[in-house]
Amino acid sequence: MASNSFGEVLRLTTFGESHGPSIGGVLDGFPPGIFIDTAFIQKEMERRKPGQSDLTTSRAEADEVHILSGVFENVSTGAPIAFLIHNRDQRSEDYTALQHVYRPGHADEVYDLKYGLRDYRGGGRSSARETAVRVAAGAFCKLLLQKENLILFSYVHSIGDIHLTTPPMEVDSIQIETNAVRCPDQVKASEMIKQIELAKANKDSLGGQIMTVIKNVPIGLGDPIYQKLNARLAYAMMSINAVQGFEMHRGFERTGWNGSENNLFETGISAGISNGKPIVFNVAFKPTSTIAQLQKAKNTEGETVTLEAAGRHDPCVLPRAVPIVEAMTALVLADAMLMSKSQRI
Amino acid sequence: MASNSFGEVLRLTTFGESHGPSIGGVLDGFPPGIFIDTAFIQKEMERRKPGQSDLTTSRAEADEVHILSGVFENVSTGAPIAFLIHNRDQRSEDYTALQHVYRPGHADEVYDLKYGLRDYRGGGRSSARETAVRVAAGAFCKLLLQKENLILFSYVHSIGDIHLTTPPMEVDSIQIETNAVRCPDQVKASEMIKQIELAKANKDSLGGQIMTVIKNVPIGLGDPIYQKLNARLAYAMMSINAVQGFEMHRGFERTGWNGSENNLFETGISAGISNGKPIVFNVAFKPTSTIAQLQKAKNTEGETVTLEAAGRHDPCVLPRAVPIVEAMTALVLADAMLMSKSQRI
Amino acid sequence: MASNSFGEVLRLTTFGESHGPSIGGVLDGFPPGIFIDTAFIQKEMERRKPGQSDLTTSRAEADEVHILSGVFENVSTGAPIAFLIHNRDQRSEDYTALQHVYRPGHADEVYDLKYGLRDYRGGGRSSARETAVRVAAGAFCKLLLQKENLILFSYVHSIGDIHLTTPPMEVDSIQIETNAVRCPDQVKASEMIKQIELAKANKDSLGGQIMTVIKNVPIGLGDPIYQKLNARLAYAMMSINAVQGFEMHRGFERTGWNGSENNLFETGISAGISNGKPIVFNVAFKPTSTIAQLQKAKNTEGETVTLEAAGRHDPCVLPRAVPIVEAMTALVLADAMLMSKSQRI
Amino acid sequence: MASNSFGEVLRLTTFGESHGPSIGGVLDGFPPGIFIDTAFIQKEMERRKPGQSDLTTSRAEADEVHILSGVFENVSTGAPIAFLIHNRDQRSEDYTALQHVYRPGHADEVYDLKYGLRDYRGGGRSSARETAVRVAAGAFCKLLLQKENLILFSYVHSIGDIHLTTPPMEVDSIQIETNAVRCPDQVKASEMIKQIELAKANKDSLGGQIMTVIKNVPIGLGDPIYQKLNARLAYAMMSINAVQGFEMHRGFERTGWNGSENNLFETGISAGISNGKPIVFNVAFKPTSTIAQLQKAKNTEGETVTLEAAGRHDPCVLPRAVPIVEAMTALVLADAMLMSKSQRI
Repeated sequence: MASNSFGEVLRLTTFGESHGPSIGGVLDGFPPGIFIDTAFIQKEMERRKPGQSDLTTSRAEADEVHILSGVFENVSTGAPIAFLIHNRDQRSEDYTALQHVYRPGHADEVYDLKYGLRDYRGGGRSSARETAVRVAAGAFCKLLLQKENLILFSYVHSIGDIHLTTPPMEVDSIQIETNAVRCPDQVKASEMIKQIELAKANKDSLGGQIMTVIKNVPIGLGDPIYQKLNARLAYAMMSINAVQGFEMHRGFERTGWNGSENNLFETGISAGISNGKPIVFNVAFKPTSTIAQLQKAKNTEGETVTLEAAGRHDPCVLPRAVPIVEAMTALVLADAMLMSKSQRI
Repeated sequence: MASNSFGEVLRLTTFGESHGPSIGGVLDGFPPGIFIDTAFIQKEMERRKPGQSDLTTSRAEADEVHILSGVFENVSTGAPIAFLIHNRDQRSEDYTALQHVYRPGHADEVYDLKYGLRDYRGGGRSSARETAVRVAAGAFCKLLLQKENLILFSYVHSIGDIHLTTPPMEVDSIQIETNAVRCPDQVKASEMIKQIELAKANKDSLGGQIMTVIKNVPIGLGDPIYQKLNARLAYAMMSINAVQGFEMHRGFERTGWNGSENNLFETGISAGISNGKPIVFNVAFKPTSTIAQLQKAKNTEGETVTLEAAGRHDPCVLPRAVPIVEAMTALVLADAMLMSKSQRI
Repeated sequence: MASNSFGEVLRLTTFGESHGPSIGGVLDGFPPGIFIDTAFIQKEMERRKPGQSDLTTSRAEADEVHILSGVFENVSTGAPIAFLIHNRDQRSEDYTALQHVYRPGHADEVYDLKYGLRDYRGGGRSSARETAVRVAAGAFCKLLLQKENLILFSYVHSIGDIHLTTPPMEVDSIQIETNAVRCPDQVKASEMIKQIELAKANKDSLGGQIMTVIKNVPIGLGDPIYQKLNARLAYAMMSINAVQGFEMHRGFERTGWNGSENNLFETGISAGISNGKPIVFNVAFKPTSTIAQLQKAKNTEGETVTLEAAGRHDPCVLPRAVPIVEAMTALVLADAMLMSKSQRI
Repeated sequence: MASNSFGEVLRLTTFGESHGPSIGGVLDGFPPGIFIDTAFIQKEMERRKPGQSDLTTSRAEADEVHILSGVFENVSTGAPIAFLIHNRDQRSEDYTALQHVYRPGHADEVYDLKYGLRDYRGGGRSSARETAVRVAAGAFCKLLLQKENLILFSYVHSIGDIHLTTPPMEVDSIQIETNAVRCPDQVKASEMIKQIELAKANKDSLGGQIMTVIKNVPIGLGDPIYQKLNARLAYAMMSINAVQGFEMHRGFERTGWNGSENNLFETGISAGISNGKPIVFNVAFKPTSTIAQLQKAKNTEGETVTLEAAGRHDPCVLPRAVPIVEAMTALVLADAMLMSKSQRI
């Protein structure tokens, strides 16, 4: 099943394993005539890159985006944009020990069951390294959306049990990139950082929530019945490793409200279609599965063994997941924007 | 944009408006040789049907499923299964008043903006009546899934602020259909019913949550990267009118756990692929938008007017949404099951 | 496999068997605001209808198109357009004898092999009756294309060994509908009619070729690499029962030309994209498989039996295939036109 | 519009321009556990490679296939197979002169009209260099089809007005690769070679036909109505640069036969589904558009200019197109084979 593509009119197809020579993507359906600002793309990559702070894995990757096609003299041509990101700092030897052990919470066992074999080096295709491609593709889409003056930002809303209290519409997006955790409230950010450092010291990990705000959304994005904009966003977010939940702004909380109250609350999407008001949604990430503690695990013989994780990993993926959430949002919006044009006669 | 289809290998295409002659669907890719138990299909329709209790709208519809093709001598032939559900109790006159008014929380305004016109009778294509087609299609898929001994049930987990406390894996599914609200705890069910009656008396409405449990799931359903089983489920659920959130079992709560704790918690899906363990997920419904209270609304001239909703509606859609959630789950699982066969050489 | 859909942005999904209650289609992605001229649609249906002359099967069908959705007050709404065509003059008893016999040149045996069962009444899903749905859908697309002043007509270019000699660009399209065989040259048309009558008298059948001319094609329809306009046209034509060949204008003949000569010959499509010049293509139909002669056939036990075809059939499908070829052309062009809009920023 | 993908369950997405750093493809949905014989893949590439004889362009490319993902320890993993083919012998300076001139028969003008700009170096995306990716992808598919003992070969059936007379079912496939023109009749092959040399001397070019034979086809490939195997084959072939016609075995000739005669003629496909008999089809290639003669051309200012083609090109593409036709055939068959599995419960 061709399952490594996302999008309808603007379609991203991705490939690559954690320890292969490169990962990459093909972005097909990207309109011609868009200036491709490679510095901007690279800046987006920096935000997701490992090793950017003490909170993240120490794997060192330049994560440079090599464009192979679809761009001529810095402008998109309408041809598919293919790009590569080379893998450099693979330490496959770290993973040799995992050839016969299934890490808890990972794809290891289920890939063996589904495919009859697996590339066990760093999780192979299931590695979160795959998200670098999403960020690159999202950066291209952001260049497209800028033409519509659309504003889009994500930020860490919670880490473990520390929650931001500022309402999304009051968040100052300038504050987001000023701390290592990407939370716009500096006090909360400090608390979050301490919490992550504590988890790291305990050889444990943390989850959290990422909030996204979109402003200046063109009216009419999204389509009934199965291409609703909120459904596409949920689909995109739930395709990210470790995501376990999605809600439109206060979606779960509002199940306890009355209709008369809820009707006064704006979500930016009516019946699956953008209505021009700001869109806010929230994404739940489970704690990182890979932890340095000794854990019980199953091996390929079906025996229970004790596992001490080698490999490098983040005690908390949330700070690096912010640009990933933004990228998937940009992919959904750009696709919806191009789709909406196809029905205008 | 062709947006009224759902599924890849098994694809449902739906059509029809609230006040047209019929609504219906085409289920393409349904395997041959499956006995089509029309009594079972009709029983599923009864669970969603309006007018089944005092808690629901009084619109009277037989909701009989008329199969037009794809079934010969009670067995599926492999040809597309098309079916119609006639609309009978349309009272279009109830809606004439709405020709120039946009109901809060509805598609009215955004359809006018997107399409330049709309079928204003009962919401036209955006009406929740469309979900009858989902239930019928889901019933066909359930017949397919029964061959795998898969067990699938949904139930009301909360109405307003009344929450069930029984863990999903301890729920006795026999209890679900024994009360009007489809909650497996009879005491909670009574409280929920009272709450709904109160909301109705107040001309207001309520939301809530629906939990789904799937057992005996074949291993290997779902595909990396963008066809993850959890992502497909989220997509399917968020496409249902009024759904504002989705989480894998305790997905939002688990953002506050440690990794060491979370790694011991089973969700039935690893890296987007079913691992054979039970799958549990939760869906958040906002309160019904249509309420009988006087509300402020916008008209087609852009003026603010006072709206007193005519038409018939549910003070709480949750009880009738249970079979809809099950149906969409069945569509996702049946599609994933057929997809998984295509890679076995 | 969901194989009963055609088109990308504008997608037709069809269903129905020769002897079921109805056949029909869903046209999804049709733009809003188009006046739906039902008289025009019905006129198109008349051109394909059985029983229109002595040259065609005597099956009597009104072939009235019943629109179920997507049209409100005679205008398309952007919602999927579903329509039904009822089957009336089914004589299933004619086909009971065929339950255990495989007709030469038909789907009978291969459907049994593929699906393990088949609806043997009139060929079930494989019946050419399915093409009525194509003509209806094509009529909707023609209404869309008229807005672009596009001119599109097909005509019989040959029947058996009688070939029209008029070059396609010199054909007077007014002449096409003036004779039963839909050939714009009245002398040739008379010869063709005689040839068909002779074949009928001999209990035999004839094939032929249908030429299509499209003028005023907007520049830029079709996309590299796999959505080339000529490739989409070939795909559409080869999906019609009995079609065995497709060529762009003089495509096979031009394999014998020199490049210097061929470069001066216009085909209307460059590198898969319409260039604004007229497009001409030719479609080859094999002779009707069903003939009234005694034939050797295989039965379901694998034995050779003698078959004398019951059922009604055309000695030559070409005259009725003209509107089918036009309809598929209109579907391809309308889809390509909507696609082309999605890349304009 | 995402138009650079081909296939449903097994989907090839391609990218790259003639003068970019690399061209390549992603083959998604390829089953796991298949031994990837890179020597075989490279051997296929050799057959399409430029510079293999005096009959072809002198552009020198190694055309080595670099696999980036989806293969682990020489076995497919089920993950997308991405591969690159580097461009080495680009001589962009040859094409600078073409920046403002539109070559007759090429994409130059229509790309400018559609996209507002173009990569004019060697035709950019529209270059026949793109077919190298098809051959590589087809080689992977052949490895898959070998498991079914399927036999598949193509050969040159005609060059200009020289036609092979051996019936396809009597062709000795061993003879095909023994001469530069890939025609299994050595006498005809010599004549064809002379003809091509003559055309080259005249600064002209030739077209021709390529015949394909498939044996041991599994029964049941292809699906009604729009995924008919013959329709998919036509679609695939017509997507190849320079192809102007497609016919199932003697498809155009058989339009002149009687039904009683035609019913005795086997084509290997019934009602769009493989019936187990050999499949034969024929593809028409127009003469190469690029010729070294002085030609009249249009420039970007709309003026008529005289063009003397620089760049290197084939006087006849047929010999190198044989593996391309085979590759597209393999893609269609492999996709259809995987599709057919999805409906078996």
